[in-house]
Amino acid sequence: MVTAQSQPQSKETEQYNVIGTRPIRHDGVDKVTGAAQYGADISLPGMLAGRVLRSPHAHARIVSIDTSKAEALEGVLAVITNADFPRASDEVIDTGEGTAQLNWVLDNVIASDKVLYKGHAVAAVAATDHHIAEDAVELIEVEYDVLTPVLDVRDAMVDGSPLLHDSLHTGEMDGSKSDNPSNTASHLQFTKGDLDAGFADADVVIEREFETSMAHQGYIEPHNGTAYYRADGTLDIYTSTQGAFVVRDSVAPLLQLSPSQVKVTPMEIGGGFGGKIPVYLEPLAALLSQRTGRPVKLTMNREEVLLATGPTSGTYMRVRMGAKRDGTITAADVHLAFEAGAYPGSPVGAGAMCALAPYDIPNQRIDGYDVVVNKPKTAAYRAPGAPQSEFATESVLNELAEELGLDPLEMRLQNACEEGAQRADGFTYGIIGNVDCLQAAKESPHWQSELEGPNRGRGIAQGFWFNIGFESSAYAQVNGDGSVPLVLGSTDIGGTRASIAMQLAETLGISAEDVHPHVVDTNSVGYTQVTGGSRTTFAGGWAAYECAMDIRRQMEERAAQIWECDASDVSYGDDAIIRGPANEDGNDQQFTFKELAAQLVTSGGHIVGRADVNKTSSGPAFATHIVDVEVDPDTGKVDVLRYTAVQDAGTAIHPAYVEGQMQGGVAQGVGMALNEEYYYDDSGDLKNASLLDYRMPTALDLPMIDSIIVEVPNPGHPYGVRGVGEVPIIPPAPAVRAAIANAIGVHMNELPMSPRAILDATVLGGD
Amino acid sequence: MVTAQSQPQSKETEQYNVIGTRPIRHDGVDKVTGAAQYGADISLPGMLAGRVLRSPHAHARIVSIDTSKAEALEGVLAVITNADFPRASDEVIDTGEGTAQLNWVLDNVIASDKVLYKGHAVAAVAATDHHIAEDAVELIEVEYDVLTPVLDVRDAMVDGSPLLHDSLHTGEMDGSKSDNPSNTASHLQFTKGDLDAGFADADVVIEREFETSMAHQGYIEPHNGTAYYRADGTLDIYTSTQGAFVVRDSVAPLLQLSPSQVKVTPMEIGGGFGGKIPVYLEPLAALLSQRTGRPVKLTMNREEVLLATGPTSGTYMRVRMGAKRDGTITAADVHLAFEAGAYPGSPVGAGAMCALAPYDIPNQRIDGYDVVVNKPKTAAYRAPGAPQSEFATESVLNELAEELGLDPLEMRLQNACEEGAQRADGFTYGIIGNVDCLQAAKESPHWQSELEGPNRGRGIAQGFWFNIGFESSAYAQVNGDGSVPLVLGSTDIGGTRASIAMQLAETLGISAEDVHPHVVDTNSVGYTQVTGGSRTTFAGGWAAYECAMDIRRQMEERAAQIWECDASDVSYGDDAIIRGPANEDGNDQQFTFKELAAQLVTSGGHIVGRADVNKTSSGPAFATHIVDVEVDPDTGKVDVLRYTAVQDAGTAIHPAYVEGQMQGGVAQGVGMALNEEYYYDDSGDLKNASLLDYRMPTALDLPMIDSIIVEVPNPGHPYGVRGVGEVPIIPPAPAVRAAIANAIGVHMNELPMSPRAILDATVLGGD
Repeated sequence: MVTAQSQPQSKETEQYNVIGTRPIRHDGVDKVTGAAQYGADISLPGMLAGRVLRSPHAHARIVSIDTSKAEALEGVLAVITNADFPRASDEVIDTGEGTAQLNWVLDNVIASDKVLYKGHAVAAVAATDHHIAEDAVELIEVEYDVLTPVLDVRDAMVDGSPLLHDSLHTGEMDGSKSDNPSNTASHLQFTKGDLDAGFADADVVIEREFETSMAHQGYIEPHNGTAYYRADGTLDIYTSTQGAFVVRDSVAPLLQLSPSQVKVTPMEIGGGFGGKIPVYLEPLAALLSQRTGRPVKLTMNREEVLLATGPTSGTYMRVRMGAKRDGTITAADVHLAFEAGAYPGSPVGAGAMCALAPYDIPNQRIDGYDVVVNKPKTAAYRAPGAPQSEFATESVLNELAEELGLDPLEMRLQNACEEGAQRADGFTYGIIGNVDCLQAAKESPHWQSELEGPNRGRGIAQGFWFNIGFESSAYAQVNGDGSVPLVLGSTDIGGTRASIAMQLAETLGISAEDVHPHVVDTNSVGYTQVTGGSRTTFAGGWAAYECAMDIRRQMEERAAQIWECDASDVSYGDDAIIRGPANEDGNDQQFTFKELAAQLVTSGGHIVGRADVNKTSSGPAFATHIVDVEVDPDTGKVDVLRYTAVQDAGTAIHPAYVEGQMQGGVAQGVGMALNEEYYYDDSGDLKNASLLDYRMPTALDLPMIDSIIVEVPNPGHPYGVRGVGEVPIIPPAPAVRAAIANAIGVHMNELPMSPRAILDATVLGGD
Repeated sequence: MVTAQSQPQSKETEQYNVIGTRPIRHDGVDKVTGAAQYGADISLPGMLAGRVLRSPHAHARIVSIDTSKAEALEGVLAVITNADFPRASDEVIDTGEGTAQLNWVLDNVIASDKVLYKGHAVAAVAATDHHIAEDAVELIEVEYDVLTPVLDVRDAMVDGSPLLHDSLHTGEMDGSKSDNPSNTASHLQFTKGDLDAGFADADVVIEREFETSMAHQGYIEPHNGTAYYRADGTLDIYTSTQGAFVVRDSVAPLLQLSPSQVKVTPMEIGGGFGGKIPVYLEPLAALLSQRTGRPVKLTMNREEVLLATGPTSGTYMRVRMGAKRDGTITAADVHLAFEAGAYPGSPVGAGAMCALAPYDIPNQRIDGYDVVVNKPKTAAYRAPGAPQSEFATESVLNELAEELGLDPLEMRLQNACEEGAQRADGFTYGIIGNVDCLQAAKESPHWQSELEGPNRGRGIAQGFWFNIGFESSAYAQVNGDGSVPLVLGSTDIGGTRASIAMQLAETLGISAEDVHPHVVDTNSVGYTQVTGGSRTTFAGGWAAYECAMDIRRQMEERAAQIWECDASDVSYGDDAIIRGPANEDGNDQQFTFKELAAQLVTSGGHIVGRADVNKTSSGPAFATHIVDVEVDPDTGKVDVLRYTAVQDAGTAIHPAYVEGQMQGGVAQGVGMALNEEYYYDDSGDLKNASLLDYRMPTALDLPMIDSIIVEVPNPGHPYGVRGVGEVPIIPPAPAVRAAIANAIGVHMNELPMSPRAILDATVLGGD
């Protein structure tokens, strides 16, 4: 059970009628009763079962693929390889988690000349049932020329390392490329001030190296993709995805279709956390359907999910930070080398933006390297890149505080960014809740309490995530009974049907229950970007607000028409009363929302509102986490005793879902901190590709997580929304590291801080 | 093969780029390849099969229903009767084909105290498969007290007739009801001028009586209904219907739900012609789903369709008409008695409105009676009521011309309504194409040709249908590639995806192929009335026009934003060029539609347009048909040798579909004229409840039907649309009757003019 302590700090929020309340989510009953339709639930007449053949090698050249025996098997209708796709160019497309070259997107979906990780798709079949499909992939004969894999980011950056791509040349900050092929896809750098002068000013300088493992998003629902290529050249796709429009815009060019030929219907989604943005099975299903003329459904099993879908990056990071005796941080030098997996595109850029974001440090340099290795292509994972980079910087900051004998919370307050501060990447903050979170943490019962007992320790860390905005669309009609169906393009992962509907309801002055949100296909709503980047409640809510304002204007006009007066004499109040001028008898004229709704049909028709917003800036989010742990000195196992997450939500639209996001983020952050890692052997074989062996925290591993919502409304949003989904995954790892150090005096420099790693560090004397 | 002679008479139409062309319909490939999903194609996880028990009696009191044995059958999950529904009040609801008392809607769906026609639903079951469901209905024991049925409208109106409803009292024109129960549900009367004086003025008066049989719409796809009542109190319905919103608003009150709890997804429809407007299976599926918590699907077989779904009325009609020697019609007295079937609601009102509508007759009286009989409740059928009433009046007019030795076409021209003429029901015509059709027919190759040979004859008749407007909604987004998905609420029966999309394309200045229309559920689009009344291209096109204008305005604003100028300085041309003021260099600034579409995302987001229109008036439609027949004197069989249909379409948006509607209407009208009838025995048992015995015309029964489109644009529509679907079913019967008379000298006074009827009339000497 979870208790929550909400502390609204904004007067405005108290004026709201719907925002800040906790209505039952509109899709709740469907989900708890099993009525909700997920990707695997789809069934179409004549549907075929697909199956993917995957590489047993981490790195090999494909000499030949013989599909003849598979094709000859009765019940097999198509076998495809990369060669069956149209040739993909190196044009850059929007993948919903950034951009990528189309040919690399294709090659990750199905290998071309080389396989680059164990589990890499090599061929796919469509058959009349899945047993035949499974048999058929066994009959495909692939001859490999096995190559030495490179599995660690540092190894990959060394001259003479095995190379994944002959065409990849070290990308430099100025966009130039070196002559020599390399595994380093790109290098970025943010600088501010004079780094040498800053370190010269410092009384204490600490430098640490960190390694972190790849970690998977761990969503419950495996990937799936069903496609039906129709005789008229249109393609229907049904899939669990965070972004139906991104799937459309990724699959269309892979099959050389226009986006308007592709309709994607987003099914319910059993978790995504960023990992349900890239396409894996959809293009294969689409091509198999094109070949067979029948619908084709592909699903992954758990092993395939872990072998072949995107985790977040494993990293090597080095941080050097200097401070004066009084705690003022004078300089920070951050080196981030991120594994991209098999194709370029790690989240190192976001990691670099976030690394030092909570602090106003005058002299900074942040270098980021995007490096390919023989592991699955990384994907977005909740605040992509930030849990790693901030683990490194927060850890060093905590050690500086320890070295200086300062309270780590006070030292953060002392160096905290406030309005007007500028990051090394050039962004200047508006009104932010950085200090507010630290202050709320300082005043929290947890921080005020004492922690006693052997091998116990307390840690604290700060987290920052920028949140994104981008495009969202909404469409709503007013029914005669005053109910308002609301059409959305955003996959609902964490309650956004409710959080968006509530903003429509608030704007119209009606109840959340009178709004009926539902998520539709890409042809039935305006363009909407992925559910990700903590953008959905922000941008979707903004679209709902604009949509409601569109309805309000039309209802004013309609009332004016009924009253035969000027629309400018009618006003729609926030109480959902539409007021007009006095009538001939001198009596005030007014309608309630429902009264006017009931008159719409007879006065010219129902009213529909629509909006499409594209907001480039969103609201920066900060979080402060406090954790108490106990370390078992015999086993190295860390128990989390108490956890408090403080976070600025901007305005908390539905506080229960904000708390849920905070608690969920902590759970995943603790998993990264203590348990989750990929065990590859030297040949690149993943040894723990199951949820028994890939150890995510269970309910038994976590205490009740206290959540304290701070509300510093975002001035850049009609209702002050910032976005809440990502920042809570960031502080857990450095906070837990600090708590372990506090408990047993050992500073861990790798993630996860597993029992084995802690025992090793204890025996070896730590850092 | 069909050849068409389009004669556009409007200069405006020649200016159009898309309107008047014949693009491939957007849903064409889906339909010819079998990919389109009809109601019977729906399959939901855990779905149950439903089955309906139907009455073997035409008229009986239900003494008891014992469902215990059926309920005990393994695999049966629910058995329901009328008693399981919430009590329905006598509140009047919009049924999409007029209005009806809710309790009568319910009782027609499932009988309460009495069964009123053979095939009347008595109980329904849901079981794990349809075999069990079929077995289960056999186990339901119903005790009936069999009553004498009344099957003919005249018998039903006689004092002492068996009464269907004790609660029904003769409805009078003033709304009053008599004390005595009756089978006459209502009586209406339209009058104009002085009838007695009119007849006194006449040189010739002819009076005839007519009988017509019930006729079924004969759609290929039987009825179906699938419902899923979810645990949160919401109900999903999937059905083949002409009006998803009408299904929603009919089913909701029957289950005492709010319309906002019900979502109806209209599947593709295999024909409707008015008969797919009422609910039959949907409420049963909904209640069965509510009882079982699982989706339930019900389908009818062909026998059930013919026994228990709505045909058009059988009638008894009497027409007296007088004219001067010069052909001027001075008076007309029309008596219409229409069978409503088991519950009130025949189309006699529309029949009365149309009866004399083509003619400017100074003195008129039209009486209409709505009468219940022990046959299935009638439903709308293409121009409901008009084929009957105009069969009567056109037939008498043809006989008057014959009697006066006048050309029946010239006599029609002489008496034709033109702009400003007022009908007896009070409607005054605007610009209409009545005379234009007659003139085009007069000039047609068919009318100009000679007909030779024994037993051959030529006939002509005029037809009128008012067409309706009502509410339609549309929603469209502009994709980055310039394609425009268009969201509609109108079931597409006859090509309205195309005809509506074309109007959007015309308004935007883009191609029909760049618009992607699709029909969605009741939550995903604004309220839209049924596809019927020839309203869909009219009102849907108007909504598309408004939607496009909404997009144009927004594109002007966006261009202005990009050019940093005033929106008033930007204009969206009909050529889809958005023009702005000259830039600083003095160069004109402009965007093509696709250029601006490509810039939408980066300039603030995509653009979405929306519209909801509710137009009470539409464009009256007229048609003139010419037919040549040959009668086999030995068998009475009539062969249609040649047929020409002339019709004012207003503007013909997609001429091929206008021609298709004209040809389809003729085919159905010829079916009514020559073959289609219900054979009931005295006990009310339908003896021809199959498509083998219920004889619709096949391709072998019909010649190529020539269609001549006259275009007199409707000034009450942005593109001059009138509506084309219904008027062509009206003239065939009187035209064929005239041709038969011309061939063999016998005036037939019943429909169908089957071989049997013709032989009878020939032997008996005709009228």
